[in-house]
Amino acid sequence: MEPNLHPYVHGRSDRESERLHYQASRLAGLLHWDTHYLPGNRVLEAACGVGAQTVILAENSPGAEFVSVDISPESLARADKRIRTEGVKNVTFRQGDIFHLPFRKESFDHVFICFLLEHLSNPLLALEKMRDLLKEGGTITVIEGDHGSALFYPDSRYAHQVIDCLVEIQRQMGGNAMIGRELWHLLNDAGFTEVTVSPRQVYADSSRPENIEGVRNIFIAMVEGVRKQAPTGSLIDAETWEKGIRDLYRTTEKDGAFSYTFFKAVGVKEGR
Amino acid sequence: MEPNLHPYVHGRSDRESERLHYQASRLAGLLHWDTHYLPGNRVLEAACGVGAQTVILAENSPGAEFVSVDISPESLARADKRIRTEGVKNVTFRQGDIFHLPFRKESFDHVFICFLLEHLSNPLLALEKMRDLLKEGGTITVIEGDHGSALFYPDSRYAHQVIDCLVEIQRQMGGNAMIGRELWHLLNDAGFTEVTVSPRQVYADSSRPENIEGVRNIFIAMVEGVRKQAPTGSLIDAETWEKGIRDLYRTTEKDGAFSYTFFKAVGVKEGR
Repeated sequence: MEPNLHPYVHGRSDRESERLHYQASRLAGLLHWDTHYLPGNRVLEAACGVGAQTVILAENSPGAEFVSVDISPESLARADKRIRTEGVKNVTFRQGDIFHLPFRKESFDHVFICFLLEHLSNPLLALEKMRDLLKEGGTITVIEGDHGSALFYPDSRYAHQVIDCLVEIQRQMGGNAMIGRELWHLLNDAGFTEVTVSPRQVYADSSRPENIEGVRNIFIAMVEGVRKQAPTGSLIDAETWEKGIRDLYRTTEKDGAFSYTFFKAVGVKEGR
Repeated sequence: MEPNLHPYVHGRSDRESERLHYQASRLAGLLHWDTHYLPGNRVLEAACGVGAQTVILAENSPGAEFVSVDISPESLARADKRIRTEGVKNVTFRQGDIFHLPFRKESFDHVFICFLLEHLSNPLLALEKMRDLLKEGGTITVIEGDHGSALFYPDSRYAHQVIDCLVEIQRQMGGNAMIGRELWHLLNDAGFTEVTVSPRQVYADSSRPENIEGVRNIFIAMVEGVRKQAPTGSLIDAETWEKGIRDLYRTTEKDGAFSYTFFKAVGVKEGR
C-alpha cells in the first residue's frame, strides 16, 4: 500500500488513474449526456480526483467556467496534466477539503459531484456544504454507483462475496458503496427541491463487446484493486477470493451477462 | 389454496387477474413500445394467461393476427371476456400445452412470450419448440423479470428474505424467478441468431407516485400473494414474513426508493 494522506478505497496508483479515465470515457454518454451548463455559468466540481469526469464536463459546456477541487495534490497534478493534454481551457483546479472550501457562500451557479458521496462518512453534511456554496436557483448534480445493483449470469455466491468484500472495506473506511439508491432522500434531506433521480443501467453480453470490456476493465478491476489497498484477510480467505474473481470474469465469457446501475440525481436550491 | 390442475406460483384468483391486468397496463410503455407486427403477420402468443399482455399486443399491431394459447381454460375464459370488453378483434384463443401445441411447423411469422419461462423447469426446450413453429426469418420476443434486480431504500434483510421466499417457492415448483439475466444465453442456446437483450428498469420514488403505486400493486402484491398459494412455514417464520412485507411497503414511503429490472430479448430464426 502506498503512503497516502487521504485514504481512498481504490488507491491512487497509475493503474487506478488509467481505470478512472477509461471508466469516464466509456460511461460519458450514459452518465453525462444530459449535463450542459450555460456560457458564463460558474460550476464547482467537488472532488474531481484525477480529472476523469472534468474533461468530459468541460468539453460538454465549453462556455462555462469550472472550478474543480480535490483534497489530494497528487490527483490534482494528474488532473492538471490531463486537462492540458486535452487542450481544455475552462477549468481551474484548487486543492481543498470539500467540508472546508475557501469559497464565498452562494458563489456558484451549479455544483457537480461524481463518485464522491460513496466515500464519505457524512454525505448529508457534504451536500449541505455544497448547498451553501450555490446561488439561489442553482442546481446540484450527483452521480453515484450502487454495488447492490450488480446482477450477472452465471450467478455465483463467490462473486457476491468478493463484491461484498469491497463494500465492507469501503464501509470500514466510512463510505457506502450502495449509496446510489439513497440519492433521492439525501438530496431532499439536504434541502434541495425539484429532486429527480434517474437510474442509468449498463448491460453487457457478448453482443456488446465494448460493454463486456467495460465490465472487465471498470467493475472487475475495481473489485480486484481493493485487495492491494486494504487487508482482506479477516473478511475473505484467499481461495474464496480467487474463486470470486474467477467467477466475475466468467460472466464476461460468450454466454455470460452482467448488469450494473448508476444513479444520477439533480436538485435545485430554491430561492427564499 | 384453490384447486388447480396447472400449478402457478401466483395462483389464478380474481385479485391475481386484476394484478396482472394492472401490471400489463402500467408497464405497457416500458415493455411493449418497440413490439409491432406487420399487417397480415401471424403471431403466436405462448401462455397468454388472462390476456393481460394480449390486449396491448393486439392493439399495437392491429393488422396482425394473434393466436394466443394458454394451458388453463379458466384463464382463457377470462382472457376472452377481456378481449371482447376491449373490442379487440384480431385475437384467437386456443387451449394447449406449449410443449405440445397443435400447430404445423413453421406456421407463425413471430412468437411472443411474456412472464412464461420463469415458471418452466425446461425453458430451453420451450424455446426450441417455439423455434420449430416459426417460419425462417421469423422472430421471437421474450420478456421476463428478475427478482435479483430488486433494489430498495431503506434496505432490509427481512424484505430480502420475503423476496427470497417467493424465489424459493417458485424454484420448488420448477421455475426460476431470476431468469431475466439468462435470456441472452437461453435464446442463443435455443438456436436463435441476432439475439439482442435490453433491460427495462423501473425506478420509483415519491416524485413518481404512479411508479410507487406500481411497486405496491405489482411487486409487493405478488410477493404477498405467494403466501396464499404455497406453504411458507419451512422457509420463513410468521414474524420475519410480517417484518419483510412491512419493510417492503416502507420503501414506498416519502423518502423511499425502489428499482426493478425486466429483460426483453429478441432473436431471429435464421434461414438455412
